[in-house]
Amino acid sequence: MIVETSKENMEIRIQRATEAYQFLKNTTIKERAAFMNAVADQIEALGEELLTTAHAETSLPLARLTGEKARTTGQWRAYAKAVASGIYGEPRIDLSKADKQKGDLRKYNIGIGPVVVFGASNFPFAFSTAGGDTASAIGAGCPVIVKAHPAHPQTSQIMADAITAVVEQFGWPEGVFSHITGVSHEIGTYLTQHKDILAVAFTGSFGGGKALFDIANRRENPIPVFAEMGSINPVFAFEHILENKAEELAKEYASSLTLGVGQFCTNPGVFVALKGENLTRFIAALKNEIQEINPVNMLHKGIFENFEKLKSIAAVQPGVEVIAEATTEVNQWEGRAMVTETTAQYFIQNSILSEEVFGPFGIIVACETPEEILQIAQALKGQLTITVAATDEDVRLNIKLIDILKDKCGRLLFNGMPTGVEVVYAMQHGGPFPSTTDSRFTSVGPDAVKRFVRPISFQNWPDEFLPEELKDENPLQIRRIVDGEVNSGSLKLQTT
Amino acid sequence: MIVETSKENMEIRIQRATEAYQFLKNTTIKERAAFMNAVADQIEALGEELLTTAHAETSLPLARLTGEKARTTGQWRAYAKAVASGIYGEPRIDLSKADKQKGDLRKYNIGIGPVVVFGASNFPFAFSTAGGDTASAIGAGCPVIVKAHPAHPQTSQIMADAITAVVEQFGWPEGVFSHITGVSHEIGTYLTQHKDILAVAFTGSFGGGKALFDIANRRENPIPVFAEMGSINPVFAFEHILENKAEELAKEYASSLTLGVGQFCTNPGVFVALKGENLTRFIAALKNEIQEINPVNMLHKGIFENFEKLKSIAAVQPGVEVIAEATTEVNQWEGRAMVTETTAQYFIQNSILSEEVFGPFGIIVACETPEEILQIAQALKGQLTITVAATDEDVRLNIKLIDILKDKCGRLLFNGMPTGVEVVYAMQHGGPFPSTTDSRFTSVGPDAVKRFVRPISFQNWPDEFLPEELKDENPLQIRRIVDGEVNSGSLKLQTT
Repeated sequence: MIVETSKENMEIRIQRATEAYQFLKNTTIKERAAFMNAVADQIEALGEELLTTAHAETSLPLARLTGEKARTTGQWRAYAKAVASGIYGEPRIDLSKADKQKGDLRKYNIGIGPVVVFGASNFPFAFSTAGGDTASAIGAGCPVIVKAHPAHPQTSQIMADAITAVVEQFGWPEGVFSHITGVSHEIGTYLTQHKDILAVAFTGSFGGGKALFDIANRRENPIPVFAEMGSINPVFAFEHILENKAEELAKEYASSLTLGVGQFCTNPGVFVALKGENLTRFIAALKNEIQEINPVNMLHKGIFENFEKLKSIAAVQPGVEVIAEATTEVNQWEGRAMVTETTAQYFIQNSILSEEVFGPFGIIVACETPEEILQIAQALKGQLTITVAATDEDVRLNIKLIDILKDKCGRLLFNGMPTGVEVVYAMQHGGPFPSTTDSRFTSVGPDAVKRFVRPISFQNWPDEFLPEELKDENPLQIRRIVDGEVNSGSLKLQTT
Repeated sequence: MIVETSKENMEIRIQRATEAYQFLKNTTIKERAAFMNAVADQIEALGEELLTTAHAETSLPLARLTGEKARTTGQWRAYAKAVASGIYGEPRIDLSKADKQKGDLRKYNIGIGPVVVFGASNFPFAFSTAGGDTASAIGAGCPVIVKAHPAHPQTSQIMADAITAVVEQFGWPEGVFSHITGVSHEIGTYLTQHKDILAVAFTGSFGGGKALFDIANRRENPIPVFAEMGSINPVFAFEHILENKAEELAKEYASSLTLGVGQFCTNPGVFVALKGENLTRFIAALKNEIQEINPVNMLHKGIFENFEKLKSIAAVQPGVEVIAEATTEVNQWEGRAMVTETTAQYFIQNSILSEEVFGPFGIIVACETPEEILQIAQALKGQLTITVAATDEDVRLNIKLIDILKDKCGRLLFNGMPTGVEVVYAMQHGGPFPSTTDSRFTSVGPDAVKRFVRPISFQNWPDEFLPEELKDENPLQIRRIVDGEVNSGSLKLQTT
């Protein structure tokens, strides 16, 4: 049913992307922003077919998909606005002066080149074909080749058609956006190895992301791969908060753990706290919550089977006890929530327990001492998020621990739960390895554009040949750093 | 004579760096800037011993070393000023609002963790122990472990002592800066493989940089390596400019090619132009220039021997003719300039001719047609710099070619010569692979700091526990993006 794009066809797409890059490089930020807003309009105008197709392919509820569609158009518009502001061009101008040998230097960021995007199955709109990676790459001035996720091929095609329609509407080269389909890993390998592909964005499993990262680094010309590979998103709950609201916390945690059948990369898979009466209250309340949740279908059979497999492996590890489980019969691909309990020492010593179980699965780590909590923090691998459930007093008593948690994540929450990733400037969706391949970047929020730009300096060029961002008169009216100071004006007035 | 730092000793230094990171992470940008300015003062105060030691170890003239010392202190001060301005913290705040589920999100950049710096032999001050990599890493909030370059061990020790004196003066943990010595490659491998080292900066050969890059990417937790590995920095000279000033251009080119015995990573090793009368004039003038240049000693025996070897290999390649050569006898390690000529087809087909010959060695590529010039541009690997020697009219006639050159370099010059890398915001010293391992960063100019920071978001944290950069009242009085708009004020006034 899914057509395997042939190598000949891929070569054509890559060649077109390379040509389109020469075009995109010379578009202005305003032109790219207009394009991105038009894509948002186009997606917004897609009728019921998009939602019903995605629902059929992913089992995600229509309400959720409606929300995700709005999020997706919102991303295109937010990134368009940010790109148009000039923030990602980072223009810097050092004017010719008598005391400088090298004369006039002007730098700004250009798109890095053709980008391959591998979308995720769990966000068929927002993290897939027309998702944040595609929007941020085009915003940067990079043509995009999407490898469609095989779990939602029709949805992917509808989104690809929408983008292609805008490419045609704008009269842009068709290579600005290409859609490649197939189920074999060879396609991804071929694209990532190709000398003319200059960056890769990926959202998915550790195995998939790490494989692409390795391929990219072994090329004759290595290229950046931003792979977001998930996380166990620990919650560290402290004494006073547990004492104050163990039951409320159990409700919040259960809700976050099972939201969307646990199919979020920010799902809080681990809950760390001191053993004792308050944790006992939390666990008792959690049991009730988990048992009350009705299982629903997961995204597809593969994800369901993987969840069942990993859940059952984790549940039988030494020192692990199942404390709450949905007791309903399995229907089709229903993901039944499970919560287990273990001790700090079992948790630290068994790396299986630190691996992501994609779905509604949690581990409560009951620690004997505060020192054990610190040991867990120190042993943690990189995470997308860490949550500190605490009162102000708890924070004051655990400053050293919290400082270590900062080294282990991209987003640190004070209470609340990590599911839900807002698309704003201040969002960081990217943490130390293995949650992503490069903690210096984010894949959510307008700053996602930064992954796909690189700086170029122009030395002593006549104004006529400079990009708009760097011309004397500042025709784009953007904020630039001129001789070390922020300057939003024209240089013509200042230099004459 | 050079002590090999033992593994036990390295472990101690890494442990100290890890501890110092917890301290540095909590310093303010003002505190780090004060430290950096104090390092500049300390280096400035170093007496004749620094210059005479470096002169003895590198053969570099005292005048050059005096200039490089000023450049080095200038770097510390310029980076300090930039860090203190808050520009590299990139603070972004999205305030809690009724229409946002996730509440208050605040992001800024923190130091990535302990950094290992491998300095270069050709800049014993500015690109070595107390060079730009060390300054930018400390500016970012990262402890630094320098692996001293074995070609100037005493110079390295003097610089290390200067930094250490400032660490003591400030009462900072000793792990903020460590100095490791040795000649074996195992030391670099050990440091780069170590799980607690979180980034690497390198300036030197392709072989060295690529080896570290590969080691870093094969770790269980891969880390970023910024390696600046040199370049052949082509000059593309067009018809009108050659007609107007062939002789002047020859003088400029010869001077740049032989500056500092050609020991710059921006040395213009290739000169591309159309065959014909004007190129003949250029070559005639160049011969005279080259023959008049008196050879002087290269940095050390190894560099001299490598230069002699690579020069003689290049000179005997098919289709390569030696057209100018210093004819003096060889004394000690004197690097005698050589210029060769070849055709576009020989140049494109023989990859040896595109490899850097570190020293005063140039290849003139005489093209039969403009199409051949385009082919050379397309075949070029990534470069630190490319120079377009052209009139305005030449540029207008070659827009497509120049657009391709942009894809191949970090800095594009309009006339002038690429040697000389000014330390300003608008400098880009970093190009596509293989000139560096990541074209998205620079190793010269304050933006070098960006290599060593990563963003972290704080969600819903009380003001009391936020870093200074993100507190409501904006105590550092820095520019922040608040709800998508630039804002330099306090939020207290605005939210009450």
